[in-house]
Amino acid sequence: MTGSPDVVARLRAALADRVDTAPGALHAARADKSGHAASGTPLAVVHARTVDDVQETLRIATATGTPVVTRGAGTGLAGGANAGDGEIALSVRGMDRILKVRPDDLLAVVEPGIINADLNAALAEQGLWWAPDPASRAISTVGGNIATGAGGLLCAKYGVVRDAVLGVDLVLADGRLLRLGHRTVKGVTGLDLTSLVIGSEGTLGVIVGATLKLRRLVPGEVCTIAATFADVRTAAEASAAVTASGAQPSIMELMDGSSLAAVHRLLSLPAPTPGAAQLTIQTDGPAAVAEADAIAAVLQASGGTVAVSHDRDEGERLLAIRRAMHPAMETLGTALIEDVSVPRSALPAMFDEIARVERDHGIVIPTVAHAGDGNLHPNFIFHAEPDEFGVVEAPPEIWDAADDLFRAALRLGGTLTGEHGVGVLKRRWLADELGDDQWELQRQVTRVFDPAGILNPGKVFAP
Amino acid sequence: MTGSPDVVARLRAALADRVDTAPGALHAARADKSGHAASGTPLAVVHARTVDDVQETLRIATATGTPVVTRGAGTGLAGGANAGDGEIALSVRGMDRILKVRPDDLLAVVEPGIINADLNAALAEQGLWWAPDPASRAISTVGGNIATGAGGLLCAKYGVVRDAVLGVDLVLADGRLLRLGHRTVKGVTGLDLTSLVIGSEGTLGVIVGATLKLRRLVPGEVCTIAATFADVRTAAEASAAVTASGAQPSIMELMDGSSLAAVHRLLSLPAPTPGAAQLTIQTDGPAAVAEADAIAAVLQASGGTVAVSHDRDEGERLLAIRRAMHPAMETLGTALIEDVSVPRSALPAMFDEIARVERDHGIVIPTVAHAGDGNLHPNFIFHAEPDEFGVVEAPPEIWDAADDLFRAALRLGGTLTGEHGVGVLKRRWLADELGDDQWELQRQVTRVFDPAGILNPGKVFAP
Repeated sequence: MTGSPDVVARLRAALADRVDTAPGALHAARADKSGHAASGTPLAVVHARTVDDVQETLRIATATGTPVVTRGAGTGLAGGANAGDGEIALSVRGMDRILKVRPDDLLAVVEPGIINADLNAALAEQGLWWAPDPASRAISTVGGNIATGAGGLLCAKYGVVRDAVLGVDLVLADGRLLRLGHRTVKGVTGLDLTSLVIGSEGTLGVIVGATLKLRRLVPGEVCTIAATFADVRTAAEASAAVTASGAQPSIMELMDGSSLAAVHRLLSLPAPTPGAAQLTIQTDGPAAVAEADAIAAVLQASGGTVAVSHDRDEGERLLAIRRAMHPAMETLGTALIEDVSVPRSALPAMFDEIARVERDHGIVIPTVAHAGDGNLHPNFIFHAEPDEFGVVEAPPEIWDAADDLFRAALRLGGTLTGEHGVGVLKRRWLADELGDDQWELQRQVTRVFDPAGILNPGKVFAP
Repeated sequence: MTGSPDVVARLRAALADRVDTAPGALHAARADKSGHAASGTPLAVVHARTVDDVQETLRIATATGTPVVTRGAGTGLAGGANAGDGEIALSVRGMDRILKVRPDDLLAVVEPGIINADLNAALAEQGLWWAPDPASRAISTVGGNIATGAGGLLCAKYGVVRDAVLGVDLVLADGRLLRLGHRTVKGVTGLDLTSLVIGSEGTLGVIVGATLKLRRLVPGEVCTIAATFADVRTAAEASAAVTASGAQPSIMELMDGSSLAAVHRLLSLPAPTPGAAQLTIQTDGPAAVAEADAIAAVLQASGGTVAVSHDRDEGERLLAIRRAMHPAMETLGTALIEDVSVPRSALPAMFDEIARVERDHGIVIPTVAHAGDGNLHPNFIFHAEPDEFGVVEAPPEIWDAADDLFRAALRLGGTLTGEHGVGVLKRRWLADELGDDQWELQRQVTRVFDPAGILNPGKVFAP
């Protein structure tokens, strides 16, 4: 089926210099930022510049039975965009135009390859923003944000990607273009295929355009609260108390003791008290000051040492500690970054489970959490040699510990992945969460879009 | 296939007195509040009390190839729950328990038959609410709200059903029970089948439970603004100016001249100036007063005569005029209530189109709009004799005018239905909006859930 010389020749005939077979390009397409890489290298990378390029690529893929792995900026954390042996890597990173901004209708129409931060910089000039703010926003694409159903720091107050996309233009496996969704606030004509595509990780089609729901920039002050606690469980209970109080912070980030210590070392800050955990909280909007005061009172009553700042720059400095998490982890070893989510009231119990997994498996799992929405990122730290391509894979004992932690999250009413997606890394747990019947039903739905199974095979629904 | 005596006998053997074949019950199941009724009468009405009852009904339906039409309170406006010849009407109205309320996690788990207003009355005791507020909230069920993707008055600020449902328990055509979605704020494990079920109008399965995303009751004042304008176009431009100003009213309702006049007559209020249109706007939350003042200034600058009230009861009296729309229409004749939605900036142009359709077809179309989100309800008024069952069907010339109006909405970038659904009434326009390829793809997706096509056949995707 996958006669590779023929496929590449046909791609070149149709797409000329958009077809890249340079070893560096093929190598780069094997991996994302998950630490995982595909076996072997793809046949070619197609750098699509237009919707036609994408359609042409898929027509050739269908005609030759060649798998297609769609990529944006390659910043995913689940291996969902990794392209390997016999596959076409289809990059839409070069399709990065803003086609339309309608301030009066609070919508924008964009191509998929635009970087989230670049879009928001352009929107800010008109007093607008697109709310989804994954931690990768400076380097990740809007198309990738949609394909993974990305989250971020602001979700509890301002929603996830699902809440911020009105429509998606999708190229099917056979090259046909469909325009899903609508440009109106309300719309219930037929099935909501737009929502189905959000988070589908390249298994239903290639996102070549999106109609985004915008917000106006929030006027007024931003207040930042930093609170330290003797241990992470107390901090988690304090965050649950903030949620239960009815306050609606825009950001509420929790760092456990080992995360905080690593970041302080990286930034040459004084070492925190051993075990001490930190909450960093922001409030915005017309009631920002009153809400910050109310939250500070809750945190103090919960045993926190609390400081409140009304200065935006000081607030950014406080948040910089949280944002330094990833580089700090790199100083400890290689990190497998996990992504479980639990009901907010279960946060303290989930931290208990993480401590248990650390003890039982004899490893360290520095953890940060978007405490406002119950989404935790446990970092499984390990040391291993890179393979021939420089990729460091997590060893089996790390996966055993991760398995233990995933099952704990499911027991607490949670989910395997809050915002990173399933990709390759979590596919073997998917049926545990969905059940076999739903797993099979979902796989059949993908087959309606992609009867031959050429879109991102081996990801998400691989048995 | 549909050997009716056998089907009813099997239902009775399995479900005893939950199977109802009284002529009054069969007759009631033929119609919703759309004015449309099914041909003939269903075989039986099953009054399900438990998930098991629903599963048993569907097993018998699958075994005998009998179509199933799921019903809640029968308040739909598109004929989606009308059951006719050879069909089983499956009522989940009796499954009306609140199974769980978790204030700390801002979620509730409910059965589908609970009335929206009853749920909200119970939640209010804990300071909580479920935001979707269709105009029918006093009489419509949560399950029906989900099945139709219902909207309401508060959507521009507080979202639609899609934004307020975390998970759905669904019984498939063959009787299997699936638990879709999650109980966490974030969750991207697999495809978002919960969103797919929202608005699917009984074509994918029977909703037997839902996990709802709640909000806390909004503290502070509610301000109400009533503004009258010389004509509906000026009022529509004023509403667009309010949206463009960045203000975020919780409610912004527009009534055109003939709507306003009819309601004033019904309520024995002084007749408004002929042609005069009205905007009724509410603001809430911590900035309610400041926002009301800012909105009043925009309305005055747009030519409105404006009154602002800070009194909740006075606000309810002002909104009562809008809420009297449906009874007022009944005084004019029979109303076909339509439901197009357009981008907010296109509201004035859509009112121009409605005026054109009125002229071209020689009919009156009193129209109200949820102006904050661009959703219009044109009421096509006609006079016709009821059939043998007391149902009054819209005559062909009314459908010709509606066709003209639907196409105008699509030309303006809008959609056929903002919140009522497709059902029977709009199925012949569905492919015009979706395109033939997407129409067929959507139909194939329904077949994954329901291979034999026994779930609500003839609705939405009927060719």
